Amino acid sequence: MTIKTWPEAARRLIGVAAGREPADTVIRNGRWVNVHSGEIIEATDIAIAEGRFAYCGPDASAMIGPDTRVIDANGRYLVPGLCDAHMHVESGMLTVGEFVRAVLPHGTTSMFIDPHEIANVLGLAGVKLMHDEAVLQPINVYVQMPSCAPSAPGLETTGFEITPDDVAQAMAWPQIIGLGEMMNFPGVANADPKMLGEIAATQNAGKTVGGHYASPDLGSAFHAYVAGGPADDHEGTREEDAIARVRQGMRAMLRLGSAWYDVKSQITAVTEKGLDASNFILCTDDSHSGTLVNEGHMNRVVRHAIECGASPMLAIQMATINTARHFGLERELGSITPGRRADLILTSDLETLPVELVLARGVVAAEQGVCTVERVAFDYPKTARDTVKLGRALVSVDFDIHAPKGADIVTANVIGMVENQAPTRALQVELPVRDCLVRGDRDRDVCQIALVERHRATGGVVNGFVSGFGYKGACAVASTVAHDSHHMIVVGTSKENMAEAANRLAAVGGGICVFKDGKEIALVELPIAGLMSDEPAEIVAEKAQRMVDAMAECGCTLNNAYMQHSLLALVVIPELRISDLGLVDVRKFEFVELFA
Amino acid sequence: MTIKTWPEAARRLIGVAAGREPADTVIRNGRWVNVHSGEIIEATDIAIAEGRFAYCGPDASAMIGPDTRVIDANGRYLVPGLCDAHMHVESGMLTVGEFVRAVLPHGTTSMFIDPHEIANVLGLAGVKLMHDEAVLQPINVYVQMPSCAPSAPGLETTGFEITPDDVAQAMAWPQIIGLGEMMNFPGVANADPKMLGEIAATQNAGKTVGGHYASPDLGSAFHAYVAGGPADDHEGTREEDAIARVRQGMRAMLRLGSAWYDVKSQITAVTEKGLDASNFILCTDDSHSGTLVNEGHMNRVVRHAIECGASPMLAIQMATINTARHFGLERELGSITPGRRADLILTSDLETLPVELVLARGVVAAEQGVCTVERVAFDYPKTARDTVKLGRALVSVDFDIHAPKGADIVTANVIGMVENQAPTRALQVELPVRDCLVRGDRDRDVCQIALVERHRATGGVVNGFVSGFGYKGACAVASTVAHDSHHMIVVGTSKENMAEAANRLAAVGGGICVFKDGKEIALVELPIAGLMSDEPAEIVAEKAQRMVDAMAECGCTLNNAYMQHSLLALVVIPELRISDLGLVDVRKFEFVELFA
Repeated sequence: MTIKTWPEAARRLIGVAAGREPADTVIRNGRWVNVHSGEIIEATDIAIAEGRFAYCGPDASAMIGPDTRVIDANGRYLVPGLCDAHMHVESGMLTVGEFVRAVLPHGTTSMFIDPHEIANVLGLAGVKLMHDEAVLQPINVYVQMPSCAPSAPGLETTGFEITPDDVAQAMAWPQIIGLGEMMNFPGVANADPKMLGEIAATQNAGKTVGGHYASPDLGSAFHAYVAGGPADDHEGTREEDAIARVRQGMRAMLRLGSAWYDVKSQITAVTEKGLDASNFILCTDDSHSGTLVNEGHMNRVVRHAIECGASPMLAIQMATINTARHFGLERELGSITPGRRADLILTSDLETLPVELVLARGVVAAEQGVCTVERVAFDYPKTARDTVKLGRALVSVDFDIHAPKGADIVTANVIGMVENQAPTRALQVELPVRDCLVRGDRDRDVCQIALVERHRATGGVVNGFVSGFGYKGACAVASTVAHDSHHMIVVGTSKENMAEAANRLAAVGGGICVFKDGKEIALVELPIAGLMSDEPAEIVAEKAQRMVDAMAECGCTLNNAYMQHSLLALVVIPELRISDLGLVDVRKFEFVELFA
Repeated sequence: MTIKTWPEAARRLIGVAAGREPADTVIRNGRWVNVHSGEIIEATDIAIAEGRFAYCGPDASAMIGPDTRVIDANGRYLVPGLCDAHMHVESGMLTVGEFVRAVLPHGTTSMFIDPHEIANVLGLAGVKLMHDEAVLQPINVYVQMPSCAPSAPGLETTGFEITPDDVAQAMAWPQIIGLGEMMNFPGVANADPKMLGEIAATQNAGKTVGGHYASPDLGSAFHAYVAGGPADDHEGTREEDAIARVRQGMRAMLRLGSAWYDVKSQITAVTEKGLDASNFILCTDDSHSGTLVNEGHMNRVVRHAIECGASPMLAIQMATINTARHFGLERELGSITPGRRADLILTSDLETLPVELVLARGVVAAEQGVCTVERVAFDYPKTARDTVKLGRALVSVDFDIHAPKGADIVTANVIGMVENQAPTRALQVELPVRDCLVRGDRDRDVCQIALVERHRATGGVVNGFVSGFGYKGACAVASTVAHDSHHMIVVGTSKENMAEAANRLAAVGGGICVFKDGKEIALVELPIAGLMSDEPAEIVAEKAQRMVDAMAECGCTLNNAYMQHSLLALVVIPELRISDLGLVDVRKFEFVELFA
């Protein structure tokens, strides 16, 4: 949805502010949460024209004409629309449009999205699709150009790769705001020309380089990374991480996602250590559709920050003006002041932050939790819907794991899940051999895992073992969400079920399915790149819940079973992972044989 | 002087930070004034390479090679180089290069200059000259494109006019950072297409629109001005002015110039009212060469802010990171953090701020008050040096003021000076007629004033009367610094002396001169545009002091006699002024006859 630029709207804004022309909308008698001055200003009127604030002051009565919509704030707070400074739409398994419709009732009016997942599947063309969908939205969706596809060059094969030339090209697109999280921190610290090339293309375009320094080492590796140019980081988990980043001139992004809890441990840098708050920003990084439907979005993060000891003003600043300023958008959004996009929330309580009314670009976009803007049509083309290419129907023998000649028992390298943690353990487990095939061991909770190539129809299947899911009986779980290269991960106790699950996902264009005793008991269709549904958040959340329940029905007891499943190919997080090229020891960034 | 961009320098910076390569310079054991976190961090080492900070942390010993210059801070404070957020180089009567050499020993390493005066004389070409001189400097000199020449269209004739097309053209020059003070606030509030065109050209280029709202009215005129787009303002004088600007999303620039004292009355918005400090910035606006030589520059402003109750950290932030952020330069300067230009001050006391060593882009640029960088040659062309065009030699009859036929006494509209204030009063005084000519009246301190056209050699002289200088005997003072159109103002008691003074300035290409009893007793040559000397600050300051002394010798008792003189043609400040087009009643923006 287009909005006139400030200079395009200026004549009208001035006319309204001067009281010479009527506004489109006037809000009367609010408490102005002024994120610039840090004050709450009573009895404030707001006048809006051309989707922008024209006037914020004591009396807008002169700006009310016969066609002006008048909203009585009745003493409620006027809060700037909330900004999510770093997030992946794909984590919600939703299109950009449906994600927007899901978060609008929570008061989010600006999102800085990093379409990193689709970049791995469809490359620059995939990023462009999400960018083009972003442009159409009724809220402000800015796109960070993904930086690291593949995230582990040489250890996996993505659908497409991102190059410095891609980055330079994307910098000219209207909604590109910077570079997405530079995850290859060893690459930056070692001055890898490809990583520096991407950063240079971004800095030369005057845009913001997103950081991602996922290491507790604050020594020379950290200092070298900082010298490379990343301007923010959301991977800190300790107070000292936040302090170190801010001291070095980076923004500390404090993250509360569906499964990330990094606000509480770091916000003390401001609330207790007293650091200048202007360099702290809130974000979600990853929100599942269930979180969006049941808990909220940036309002959840702001509330949480307040519970952790931030004042409401500070928490709101960290989700509005601080974010806008970081991305060079301070004169465009992030506050309720003249010229800016008229994005705001009406709320009757600044601590619990009930979102009673949301205006986006001057339009009522949500009321009492219900989105009131139309669904924006965007057609993902066939190329984006035809991404699960197995080349053939899989059969159970594809999952046969042959024992070394003559062995009747083998010691296998097994991926060991760790409850509530992303890292795995590299286990060695003795497994039985029957009919020359190595089998899982239900008693020791070892079942099979397969990485099924799906980008180039090679028919490739890499088999291995995983421990910790707790599956019992004959079952299989398959997913085309398989960070970061997003092939297909199939985990199961039954090779027949594994083949059926894989074939089913190929048939529906991707998603997640659960088979038990040869029957499909759950399916989340994700036809767009095998990552995203085109259904609304409520339906996706329901299907995802059904899927998680189905995993439990198969015996799984993990807290975040599906998330754990989808991360098993993430060959940048220790210790043992699987990729389309083999089993990877991430402690050494080396391939390792299945049998020790 | 060029410096590699961050991406150009990145490989080296990373290598230094990682300890793999030696730095160019290492400073050991400083107290790091960290304007991002708001902390002072003890025992900090700094490593510099390629003119940028590569490392800021506890130990740079690994970065010292055989050719590394090592500076022992010995526990002194490391303060970011100071920024002047809005200033006119011409006020110092110096070239950009000499201004830089004058302020470097005071720790100024970034200036945002608005060459408004030369724009009135030479138009866009004059701005380009100062821009091109700015590019060559060893410190960061950014240029604000002047917005208002003439400042009072229709009431005066400037040498050249600035148009929206000029502004759009200038936005592409490398050092242009935004639009200079938008002084035509009634024009903006009335949506004047020319003013909005200039603002639009600036906003469309993604640059900062400087404001200048010189009115105490915080009602609808103010709100309309804000809606037009100015992003800062330095014309506030009261606490409520600063608060109003910040609430509206503007930066409040607090000014301490040679003759402006606006910090003390406004900084209480932060120190007492507790407003968020990140939107407050310090600047000088106008510094005379004497102030630069004898008192300082931004160090003087920072010291003063501390005396007014700001903490040293706050005062320094308002002259470093806050300024950088406002202009979108936060990742380039304004703090001591990796990647930024290595501009810093070493000082042993954070309250009195003695500037003991200055590094600019990693080079020692001043030590113990002495500038240690070479003078940068820049040749102002003949067009810039040949701007005083009278068309002919003036003679005393040019200053004859003929009485209405038959009158032997007349009531004249007389410009009345007000001690210590810029506004004048519109007086009506009965003056004697002798030989058909109206005469001044020494008893009532009324002498003659003439506005001599000097841009187009029209030979035009507009005569009038002024009261308040106190001149006695036969004398005349002439100046080609005559805000804002910079014709020539001649004030005197003797028409012969007035003609001599005017002709003298024409001969030297402009400046200020004082004649007494037919003899020149002071001369400040300002051959560049009639505004600037090409001599060093010390010499200009000395000559200016001699000139002020000479005015006193003629009987003048005003505190800021020369400044008052140079503002008498400023037809935007009430009540009565003189221009090349006649006598102007600035209360009504109308011409007025000399005789009532």
